[in-house]
This record gives sequence, C-alpha cells and structure tokens, in this order.
Amino acid sequence: MQLDNLSKQLEFIKEIDKIKYIQRKTRLFNSNRNENDAEHSWHLAVMALVLAEHSNEEVDLLKVLKMVLIHDIVEIDAGDTFLYDSQRDNSKAAEVLAAKRIFGLLPEKQAAEFIAIWEEFEEGNTAEAKFAHSLDRLEPVLQNDSNNGGTWAEHNVPYEKVIGKVSVMNHGSTVLWGHAEKLIGSFYAEEDF
Amino acid sequence: MQLDNLSKQLEFIKEIDKIKYIQRKTRLFNSNRNENDAEHSWHLAVMALVLAEHSNEEVDLLKVLKMVLIHDIVEIDAGDTFLYDSQRDNSKAAEVLAAKRIFGLLPEKQAAEFIAIWEEFEEGNTAEAKFAHSLDRLEPVLQNDSNNGGTWAEHNVPYEKVIGKVSVMNHGSTVLWGHAEKLIGSFYAEEDF
Repeated sequence: MQLDNLSKQLEFIKEIDKIKYIQRKTRLFNSNRNENDAEHSWHLAVMALVLAEHSNEEVDLLKVLKMVLIHDIVEIDAGDTFLYDSQRDNSKAAEVLAAKRIFGLLPEKQAAEFIAIWEEFEEGNTAEAKFAHSLDRLEPVLQNDSNNGGTWAEHNVPYEKVIGKVSVMNHGSTVLWGHAEKLIGSFYAEEDF
Repeated sequence: MQLDNLSKQLEFIKEIDKIKYIQRKTRLFNSNRNENDAEHSWHLAVMALVLAEHSNEEVDLLKVLKMVLIHDIVEIDAGDTFLYDSQRDNSKAAEVLAAKRIFGLLPEKQAAEFIAIWEEFEEGNTAEAKFAHSLDRLEPVLQNDSNNGGTWAEHNVPYEKVIGKVSVMNHGSTVLWGHAEKLIGSFYAEEDF
C-alpha cells in the first residue's frame, strides 16, 4: 500500500514540474524577467509565513500554505489568465477539469484532500482562503510598484479596474490592502490614464 | 507596531526575490534548463505535503514546510554549492553571515524564529530536519533519473560518492531512500564510471 501510494505520488511530483514553464504577466522585482508559477507560489508561501499577523481573522497557517502552494497547479492544463483580462471567467471550467486530472494522479484520499483545498481557495469564503487571496493580489502590486507600474502601465489598465480587482484583499487583510491601495494610488497619481 | 513590522517584512519579501536568479546544478525534469532555488524550494514544499506519510518519524508538517521554504535563502549571499563539490564545507561561515543579514531584515522576534528554523535544518538532528533533508536529496535524484544521469553523468561523479551523499536520506525516510537507491543503482548499472 505504501509503495503503491509512493508510485502515484512520484508521478504527481514529476507532472507538477511543468508549472515552472508557465509564465505570468508580472515580472520579478526591479526586473524585465517574467515570473513563473513555481516562483510565484514559493513567494506567496514565504509571504504567508511572514505576514500571517496581518490577517483579519485567525488562520490555520498550514492550510494557507497548502492553498498557496497548489493554487496554480491547474494552470498546467488551463494556462495562466491575466487578472485584468475580460475572458478570465471562461477558464473556470478548464481549471476544474485540470484539478481532477492532475490532483487525480495522487492516491485517492490525497487527491480528494487536494481538490477540496483548491476548491476552498477558489470559493474564497473561509478565513484561510481570504488571506491566501490577499497574498495572491499583494505580490503583483509590490512587483508592479518596483517596475514603474509593470503590467498596469504595459496594458494601460485604468485605476478603477485595478482597485476593483485588488480591493478584494480587504476581505483577508485590511492592513495589507491599506498598503496596496497606497502603492496603487501613488503610481496613478503620477500617470495620466 | 504592526505597520513598523510590515515595512520590515516587505523589505525581506523584496530581498528574497533574488533566489529566483540562483541557478542550481540540477536541471528540471526531462529538460536542459537548470532549476533555480525558488523553483526547488517550491517543489520540496509540495513534496513535503505529498510524501509526509513516508517519514520515519511523525513530523510537524508546518515546521517541515518552513524549513524547505527558507533553507536556501542564505544562498543569496553565499551562492549555491554543488553537493559533490569538495569545497562545500567552506561555505558554512558565509551561510551563517547570510542568515544573520537576510533574516535580520525581519522584525526581531520573527528574525530569531527564522534563524532558529534554518539552524535546526542545518544541524539535521530533529525529525523535521531529517525528513526535510530527505526531500532535499530526493528531488535531484528524481531529476537526474529523468535526465540520463544529469549531474552524475555531467560531472563524472562515482557511484560510491553519490551513495555517500544521498544515503543520509535513510535517517529521514527509509522508504524514500529505498526508492532513491534503486534509481541510482539502475543508472550506474548501465554506465561505466
């Protein structure tokens, strides 16, 4: 049983290597190099460790880590969608299929646990999911701030659209949202969009 | 106090972005592209979630995650050292200085916690440190196996040296070491080193 589990687990571990090739729109800090999904997920995990005190609600840190570590694995099949892209909602069905296929490589009980964690993150209703989403929004704000507006500038995203998408952070962390709002405001105050 | 903490935490979060540029000797699965430290740390973290049942001793999974997520941050200052390099031990002093400088960017209490976690990993005596080391050894074995011997072949590392370095896995997980030993043996059985 243990060796049977192991062979399934190793298959999963090899499969998820592919997220290292999935490029995000955002770039590394002070950089022209795009970030990939593995780097992004690692950074969110360390941010969760470091910033947990700023969550609005007490969180189960282990669950937050599970969420941020696996939240983008579905993009192996479904691809990365840009936060400000109007087609974003269409990718949901593809992501559900991807979750079934990729987490389904794991032993049955583990597959069910990973799918449940991913769904909880996607639904965004629990304290852990709300805080995880705050981190997922905060990282690109920090990156864009360090890159003269980054994706906001490159894609001419209007101020209201950024605020509309990023303010969801407030549900997870009023403190982190307060900081993000300041950075966004300060970029758009100097630009003419 | 909370905002004072936040500004230190954000400085740390920006600083550690640099590990995305630190190239390891090992390559991604079935690939010619070298892995970087952020990708490696992410992969170990997911491996910890997936493989915890194979630890010899019961582990605090949250602590294992903390270890694998931050274990390579010191390489921002100290650089990556190749497992089979005879100069490897000389880098220890540089890593201790790096830990003080980089984790020292965090608020005092958090800095002390991160340094303690990193030291516990380095010392390798607790159940969590032993299991984390097993994962850190297992990933490149799986990668080399998928890359026709990878770094073993490229650097002509003799079989005994690989076994000498990788068998430390046995302290953390007899099951994972059993699998690694099989893969190593099967590669060297076909080669003439």
